[in-house]
Amino acid sequence: MTTELSPDALTGLLDQARRDYQDLAGRGLSLDLTRGKPAPEQLDLSEDLLSLPGGRHTSADGTDVRNYGGLQGLPELREIFAGALQVPAAQLLAAGNSSLELMHDCLVHALLSVLPGVESRWVEQERIAFLCPVPGYDRHFALCERFGIDMIPVPMTAEGPDMDVVERLVAEDPAVKGIWCVPKYSNPDGVCYSDATVARLASMTTAAPDFRIFWDNAYAVHHLTDEPVAIADLLAACAEAGNPDRTFVFGSTSKITAAGAGVAFFGSSPANVQWLLGNNAKRSIGPDKVNQLRHVMFLQDAEGLQAHMERQRALLQPKFEAVARILDAELGGTGLATWTSPKGGYFVTLEVQDGCAKEVVRRAAEAGIVLTPAGATHPYGDDPRDAVIRIAPSYPGLAELEQAIAGLAVCVRLVGYEQRVR
Amino acid sequence: MTTELSPDALTGLLDQARRDYQDLAGRGLSLDLTRGKPAPEQLDLSEDLLSLPGGRHTSADGTDVRNYGGLQGLPELREIFAGALQVPAAQLLAAGNSSLELMHDCLVHALLSVLPGVESRWVEQERIAFLCPVPGYDRHFALCERFGIDMIPVPMTAEGPDMDVVERLVAEDPAVKGIWCVPKYSNPDGVCYSDATVARLASMTTAAPDFRIFWDNAYAVHHLTDEPVAIADLLAACAEAGNPDRTFVFGSTSKITAAGAGVAFFGSSPANVQWLLGNNAKRSIGPDKVNQLRHVMFLQDAEGLQAHMERQRALLQPKFEAVARILDAELGGTGLATWTSPKGGYFVTLEVQDGCAKEVVRRAAEAGIVLTPAGATHPYGDDPRDAVIRIAPSYPGLAELEQAIAGLAVCVRLVGYEQRVR
Repeated sequence: MTTELSPDALTGLLDQARRDYQDLAGRGLSLDLTRGKPAPEQLDLSEDLLSLPGGRHTSADGTDVRNYGGLQGLPELREIFAGALQVPAAQLLAAGNSSLELMHDCLVHALLSVLPGVESRWVEQERIAFLCPVPGYDRHFALCERFGIDMIPVPMTAEGPDMDVVERLVAEDPAVKGIWCVPKYSNPDGVCYSDATVARLASMTTAAPDFRIFWDNAYAVHHLTDEPVAIADLLAACAEAGNPDRTFVFGSTSKITAAGAGVAFFGSSPANVQWLLGNNAKRSIGPDKVNQLRHVMFLQDAEGLQAHMERQRALLQPKFEAVARILDAELGGTGLATWTSPKGGYFVTLEVQDGCAKEVVRRAAEAGIVLTPAGATHPYGDDPRDAVIRIAPSYPGLAELEQAIAGLAVCVRLVGYEQRVR
Repeated sequence: MTTELSPDALTGLLDQARRDYQDLAGRGLSLDLTRGKPAPEQLDLSEDLLSLPGGRHTSADGTDVRNYGGLQGLPELREIFAGALQVPAAQLLAAGNSSLELMHDCLVHALLSVLPGVESRWVEQERIAFLCPVPGYDRHFALCERFGIDMIPVPMTAEGPDMDVVERLVAEDPAVKGIWCVPKYSNPDGVCYSDATVARLASMTTAAPDFRIFWDNAYAVHHLTDEPVAIADLLAACAEAGNPDRTFVFGSTSKITAAGAGVAFFGSSPANVQWLLGNNAKRSIGPDKVNQLRHVMFLQDAEGLQAHMERQRALLQPKFEAVARILDAELGGTGLATWTSPKGGYFVTLEVQDGCAKEVVRRAAEAGIVLTPAGATHPYGDDPRDAVIRIAPSYPGLAELEQAIAGLAVCVRLVGYEQRVR
């Protein structure tokens, strides 16, 4: 992001940005790019769910899905998602409507019950820490904060977290009990973990015997191109490396069918699955199996899931293309920002000049464009470079999105040139 | 349970019981009275749920129920249940498919986050204890056991727990942080708490400032007679007594609509509701609002709920009448047992001679009649008198139920006379 502009040229660009911003602010916009919410048209794709299961109330094995029981969830639904989540159906658990709940509950159970392979509960340790690849997902960080778990940022690379750093930290500190990973089309920067990263995660030596990888595969089937990315199978790699219990896999249909009324999944080694089922058995008499049957009837099978995600992509891809097109047109060559071109997932990461992110978000909000707070992509809301902005293009309509991104680009120019002039 | 039988008469009765048991065992029965599960016919009453909400996906205020958000649940659903649960709709939370989950999570949050009004978390205390009125609900006890919470049994009376005992224990021991209550048609003995009991619970002095009543109003609308029992409003009584945060109210539609696919509720003071919402906000992006809308459309309003429960009663009442009729015919006047005649709820409590319950359950199982394990109604599975057996008449068909109860009566005679002869 160097510049060789003359002082006059810079002043001219700043003046132009100020005029553009005045113009923007005068338009009384009210646009929201904060969260990765599906748009109504995406939810409409699953409209049939709303009248299913219709006259049917038994699962494939004859279970009455309306009654209590069936803690592991319907086998036929687990079969549909086994491939996408890279977990054998027998080691997969279909639960409620939120994978975040499952992550929360795994932390709770690790805090209050001993994990397989160890003798003491996390709550008895003086200190617990998690590695947090940054930029990352703010709701992961909020869980750590809520439970008093220290967060240690680890830089992301194009292949996933910097594994030299990860390997060093997990080897030297037994308080490091976990790492948050969004391995495919990661939130927010769209990174897909390389095979080498997965292999190193599976085989690295950890000082903590109860170290767990929280593998939040939220975007496993959420492709945006003709070349769907495949990542290596971490659960299998861990088993092969002699660390079978190292990984908790999470996923959900929140961004497949309905964001509030989908089904969440947990997958792991047999020992970990038994551990979670045992703890869940005290908490619940079973998940909503009617909703699971509804999903089975709607998606049918793995091919049905894939076909459904093609329809999702048809709605989402134009939005991501619009973001790229506008950012390129408005900010390309300015040296003021870089941005990601994700091949899937829900986010674009915009990186502005150091020290500018908060101010860009503030100026955008004043012009009626609400963004995720700057810093949210980092533990404790603290982006030390104050450079990362997360863009969530899914929810607004295409026209609104174009307005919002163009407006955001104005703010980036305004704040960027202001900083350079200073 | 005294008897003035001559030795000969007793021998004759025992011989007859032995013959009857041989006959019973030879019939190859396979009957299950273990759990309070709704029968398929009861679930059929809510068949319309399976194709709702149909074409609709917005709540009364225009919220798209398919998307994220709405942590407190749909206001219109909370309105329907506010009266039945005696909680103002604004202080009621509509959640997932299980009230047991909400109880579990309240314990988790109390262990790991400070409750309103105190400074430290339960997990930091050396010892936590709960009062457990006995006989009681085994899943409550299992939650305490899972979290290492000591359980102190308190005898039940016809008006609820023995309040002299409760008042003494909560006043003298700050480790006593809670009490389990099923205040209406209690599990398993059908007791309804008297107004005096509710008043004393609300106003008693507790050594623990963060003492909580876990008010599991599971059978609030589950009447079995023409005279529905009304209990006093504990939440209001606590507020009036200056202990507004003392009560957590729980309820669900598990035994109203669908046992696995209903909606659970939590109600409390504004401070406690904010506390739970704040903790839930880290765990979830909202409950399944589609299922909540489904329930609103199906039940319509409080009158619709009442009418639906009349239809439930029409299916359940004959089963409870059959239990009473058969026990009376087979065991009346024998002095071998007493049993409850609940005006609502899901259970009949059969009390046999001290030292006989486990053996009755064992003999019944050998004859193909499976009952809840003796002792399950007491903390740690330990009924010191070995006298209480819980009967769950809801699930079997009427003919099967009649067979099972008649068979159970044979076992009571067999074990009872065997004991007397010894």
